[in-house]
Amino acid sequence: MKKVGIIMGSDSDLPVVEKAISVLENLQIPYEVHVYSAHRTPEQARDFALNAAARGFGVLIAAAGMAAHLAGAIAAVTVLPVIGIPIESGSLRGMDALLSTVQMPGGIPVATVAINGAANAAYLAAEILGVEDPALRSRLSAVRQSAAEKVFEKNRKVEEKYNQD
Amino acid sequence: MKKVGIIMGSDSDLPVVEKAISVLENLQIPYEVHVYSAHRTPEQARDFALNAAARGFGVLIAAAGMAAHLAGAIAAVTVLPVIGIPIESGSLRGMDALLSTVQMPGGIPVATVAINGAANAAYLAAEILGVEDPALRSRLSAVRQSAAEKVFEKNRKVEEKYNQD
Amino acid sequence: MKKVGIIMGSDSDLPVVEKAISVLENLQIPYEVHVYSAHRTPEQARDFALNAAARGFGVLIAAAGMAAHLAGAIAAVTVLPVIGIPIESGSLRGMDALLSTVQMPGGIPVATVAINGAANAAYLAAEILGVEDPALRSRLSAVRQSAAEKVFEKNRKVEEKYNQD
Amino acid sequence: MKKVGIIMGSDSDLPVVEKAISVLENLQIPYEVHVYSAHRTPEQARDFALNAAARGFGVLIAAAGMAAHLAGAIAAVTVLPVIGIPIESGSLRGMDALLSTVQMPGGIPVATVAINGAANAAYLAAEILGVEDPALRSRLSAVRQSAAEKVFEKNRKVEEKYNQD
Amino acid sequence: MKKVGIIMGSDSDLPVVEKAISVLENLQIPYEVHVYSAHRTPEQARDFALNAAARGFGVLIAAAGMAAHLAGAIAAVTVLPVIGIPIESGSLRGMDALLSTVQMPGGIPVATVAINGAANAAYLAAEILGVEDPALRSRLSAVRQSAAEKVFEKNRKVEEKYNQD
Amino acid sequence: MKKVGIIMGSDSDLPVVEKAISVLENLQIPYEVHVYSAHRTPEQARDFALNAAARGFGVLIAAAGMAAHLAGAIAAVTVLPVIGIPIESGSLRGMDALLSTVQMPGGIPVATVAINGAANAAYLAAEILGVEDPALRSRLSAVRQSAAEKVFEKNRKVEEKYNQD
Amino acid sequence: MKKVGIIMGSDSDLPVVEKAISVLENLQIPYEVHVYSAHRTPEQARDFALNAAARGFGVLIAAAGMAAHLAGAIAAVTVLPVIGIPIESGSLRGMDALLSTVQMPGGIPVATVAINGAANAAYLAAEILGVEDPALRSRLSAVRQSAAEKVFEKNRKVEEKYNQD
Amino acid sequence: MKKVGIIMGSDSDLPVVEKAISVLENLQIPYEVHVYSAHRTPEQARDFALNAAARGFGVLIAAAGMAAHLAGAIAAVTVLPVIGIPIESGSLRGMDALLSTVQMPGGIPVATVAINGAANAAYLAAEILGVEDPALRSRLSAVRQSAAEKVFEKNRKVEEKYNQD
Repeated sequence: MKKVGIIMGSDSDLPVVEKAISVLENLQIPYEVHVYSAHRTPEQARDFALNAAARGFGVLIAAAGMAAHLAGAIAAVTVLPVIGIPIESGSLRGMDALLSTVQMPGGIPVATVAINGAANAAYLAAEILGVEDPALRSRLSAVRQSAAEKVFEKNRKVEEKYNQD
Repeated sequence: MKKVGIIMGSDSDLPVVEKAISVLENLQIPYEVHVYSAHRTPEQARDFALNAAARGFGVLIAAAGMAAHLAGAIAAVTVLPVIGIPIESGSLRGMDALLSTVQMPGGIPVATVAINGAANAAYLAAEILGVEDPALRSRLSAVRQSAAEKVFEKNRKVEEKYNQD
Repeated sequence: MKKVGIIMGSDSDLPVVEKAISVLENLQIPYEVHVYSAHRTPEQARDFALNAAARGFGVLIAAAGMAAHLAGAIAAVTVLPVIGIPIESGSLRGMDALLSTVQMPGGIPVATVAINGAANAAYLAAEILGVEDPALRSRLSAVRQSAAEKVFEKNRKVEEKYNQD
Repeated sequence: MKKVGIIMGSDSDLPVVEKAISVLENLQIPYEVHVYSAHRTPEQARDFALNAAARGFGVLIAAAGMAAHLAGAIAAVTVLPVIGIPIESGSLRGMDALLSTVQMPGGIPVATVAINGAANAAYLAAEILGVEDPALRSRLSAVRQSAAEKVFEKNRKVEEKYNQD
Repeated sequence: MKKVGIIMGSDSDLPVVEKAISVLENLQIPYEVHVYSAHRTPEQARDFALNAAARGFGVLIAAAGMAAHLAGAIAAVTVLPVIGIPIESGSLRGMDALLSTVQMPGGIPVATVAINGAANAAYLAAEILGVEDPALRSRLSAVRQSAAEKVFEKNRKVEEKYNQD
Repeated sequence: MKKVGIIMGSDSDLPVVEKAISVLENLQIPYEVHVYSAHRTPEQARDFALNAAARGFGVLIAAAGMAAHLAGAIAAVTVLPVIGIPIESGSLRGMDALLSTVQMPGGIPVATVAINGAANAAYLAAEILGVEDPALRSRLSAVRQSAAEKVFEKNRKVEEKYNQD
Repeated sequence: MKKVGIIMGSDSDLPVVEKAISVLENLQIPYEVHVYSAHRTPEQARDFALNAAARGFGVLIAAAGMAAHLAGAIAAVTVLPVIGIPIESGSLRGMDALLSTVQMPGGIPVATVAINGAANAAYLAAEILGVEDPALRSRLSAVRQSAAEKVFEKNRKVEEKYNQD
Repeated sequence: MKKVGIIMGSDSDLPVVEKAISVLENLQIPYEVHVYSAHRTPEQARDFALNAAARGFGVLIAAAGMAAHLAGAIAAVTVLPVIGIPIESGSLRGMDALLSTVQMPGGIPVATVAINGAANAAYLAAEILGVEDPALRSRLSAVRQSAAEKVFEKNRKVEEKYNQD
């Protein structure tokens, strides 16, 4: 199976990014994690993205905060799908990162998820790899089913407590 | 090749959505276009999404404005990747649609592009289908190269006009 | 008397939603509480709304955060009045939920209250049921009177403390 | 049938408010329209709201722009349900009116619809009157069905044009 | 000297409002403090404002949060200058209160100060009373001079610590 | 009677500021108008404000757009009340000017009116001068009464057109 | 004298950027203009910045809209001062470009000017080159003086028209 | 070497400003620190800026919160480059300070950095002084290299932990 490359702009993003790692492990999707900064180590970020397809990556995930350029910088040098996670940090609570990630110019898309939406970035990566992998799609459906069952269970508890008769 | 399904919440979104259609045609990617509203025809939207994988779709694109629920409603019933285009309409110029599309809860991702970013939605769909299709990746690279050359040409014109000596 | 149906997208919304329950109990209005997610258990949310009128509900209240689609999804399949409570959660403190709830397209209204405005959602439900129920209107007026008296009492204390002569 | 009272803060709001009038006429709901300003003619606004229940009104709709206090001022003196329409006007395009209308303190709800959402204000009023009026609910369902059919028709046209084979 | 009337919509605003009281006491300006809610006790708020000029008030200060209608409601029934303090409360941190207070329609001004700017509301009231009271203007100038001296002293400390030679 | 000083940061603000001039003329209040820029001619702005009290001014009005510092710069050097009009200009439609004008630090208040709220700036100036001038207060009440009568007339026309029986 | 390098992300930014060119010509500062896109021609943008100091540039100006990464991408590979002009374009009117330009992480500053503030970008570049060039500082002072005189003249006209006696 | 002048509007800004001091010390750049308020001690702020060039300053840094006028007030009276640091304070978390600092009118630029971006203000000042000082540029490059190496090291740790094989 193709790998998912996860890049974060700073290791301070790791607590959020770990939710993506956990989802990928749960779905048995191979991955690599790196800290490459669009501004402090731009060469490394670019080189990783330039070689990602040849190195067996199928999807790249980039997490960054504030003027979050990482996802866009990577997307500019690969035609692999790039998923952007805007990280909540600093005074503007991630609104700056959201706009810096999603408002890309024509030709260079970044598939943006919610602010701090690392789990969804991983689920989206899995859905992308699942387009040609029915077994992975089945595992994704099972996760959905399990999430639904958790809601059913919570619903039962709430119903029991509040709807007495 | 798997098809791209394009759904818009209203035919008033068509002038924006046509940019996506044009990109897909240029990349020789098969597609279908539909008008299904998350609120006015929710059954049709859901049925389309439920059957999309079986009907040969690989990626779904959903365009909607204001409280844009369409992409999320479709994403809730399929594990195919769903791309959301927030449409600029009404008083808030698409900021409402952007937040309604991108801020999805955990487990149900929507790959969100810029407000009115229909061309990028199509390029992202192509990148997703290209993960297992090197020929499509080559066509995408060619489009990138062509876009770069247009910038080179514009640069030459600007340089000629302003950098006289 | 017709019942009020309270639906929340996640049991993490319960601390806010309990303010609505408390208001309904105080006004002696029958209610049911459920956890149905627009994205994780969309079928259950829809089925509840489809059958709500037949099951004796007069008003539905839906609470959800982030890209809050729950109220709109329910409103799409019933002509009972649907009240939306945008829940404060995540980085954007409920502004995303407010816009996702209130900016509904024409034909499918959601009666939106303030972010985390669960008490007002219940009061609004009571006002709706009170249109044809003078006794309920009297109870509502009594609550208003009691709230006014609390303000009078607070005013007296403030006046005593600050306006010495 | 109980009447719907429509109040606007200025006759400049009339082009928006007329969409509400048209919906009510189409649904055969009796109504009255008035221009009362929360700030220029507060007595008239208050007197109307104070006497509305006794004069046979079941729901009140208030439309206002900028620091839109009208809906709240009316809601403060009646326990009839009050629907607020934030009007787009001035530099902030209705965001000021939206927040001034929806962010009501506990105890005094305003059922807020989208910026300029006059049609939905009327549909919501109809849904409220329909709680105890199955015939009105049927008319509302018919409107919904008709709207769905318009979407079906638009879908057919789009499908014919774009999905050639 | 004419009195300053301070009205707050809720006694939860008191910790902010106390900064205004303290400024007025320091400037030897007579004042009264009241808790009148635009929505819960609108009659009391209106009656106070209607009689304020006759009762010897020269300026009114109104503090309120969320959909802050109090200053506007008072301004609508008096031609005394009304100063509005938007209170930070709830999810939107006072932005709702700021827009609800400052964006008044033509003819009914509210002199708006910063979010939680209670001290400045009192200084502004003093400046207004000082237009015809040179002694008060002198006291205001003395406060300004004293504030400047505090900045001079802080500057000296910072200069000593950081500018060693 | 004391004069009102109107200062604008640029003569491009004049179309908005003229509404203030017209209100003052209508109320028979003496005034002066000047173009002083906080950034291009700061000395002139400061000198005007420093001498304003001695030259017979009672209130100053300052209109400016974008990073609107004019009202604050003037307020810093006088204890006369200063009214700020945030001017809508540039990309952010006056939101920048509003925040730059209203969010003043403690000790230096600016009485802020709505974006482009020049008429209200003049009415507020009149209310301030009216604190010690019952005749001016009467003229202000007459304007209010006249505005109310215009609303009554508009109400009559709307009622005639829409409330046929 | 060192040159100023002006880079724009798209030739559609040229109408704004021309204001910067005009300022530099007026101040007799040598410059070059280029169209390099951070996303479409990232190599060219990087190479230009990497070699800028050696090629005699003293300051770089970068103009871009939407998720405006150009200034940051250039700043990441040079220690020359980089000035960013956020361009107003698309649905969000430049707020996205402003945040994407100004909210840079520690270590890689971008000197950001107002949305569409191309003239100020050029003046700032001149001020930077003027730090070691008293003659240029004199020319800048002369421009300031000339701008002040234009304000004086406008003030005279306004005073003549409005302050008749 | 020319000095950097750091001015803050209040000593409460010192914890943020100290990051700038630390950067300048690390780069061996002489500096002075002062507390001058644009509103409380405007004369001192202006006098400092007027004499800054003659006193050997090459760049000025101004830090202020809320309606942050300090950078603009200083920029208005000097043609030295002025860097503005918007300080996060109060209810709006620095968005008010950002807009008040960056949205300067034509002719008077302020080089704005991120909210609380004091370190970058100092780096930018160093870059400006480095335009004519290759040794300082070398020190800046060394700091960049050191920051890159910290990212490399963090990357190694993350790679070791997560990329086991």
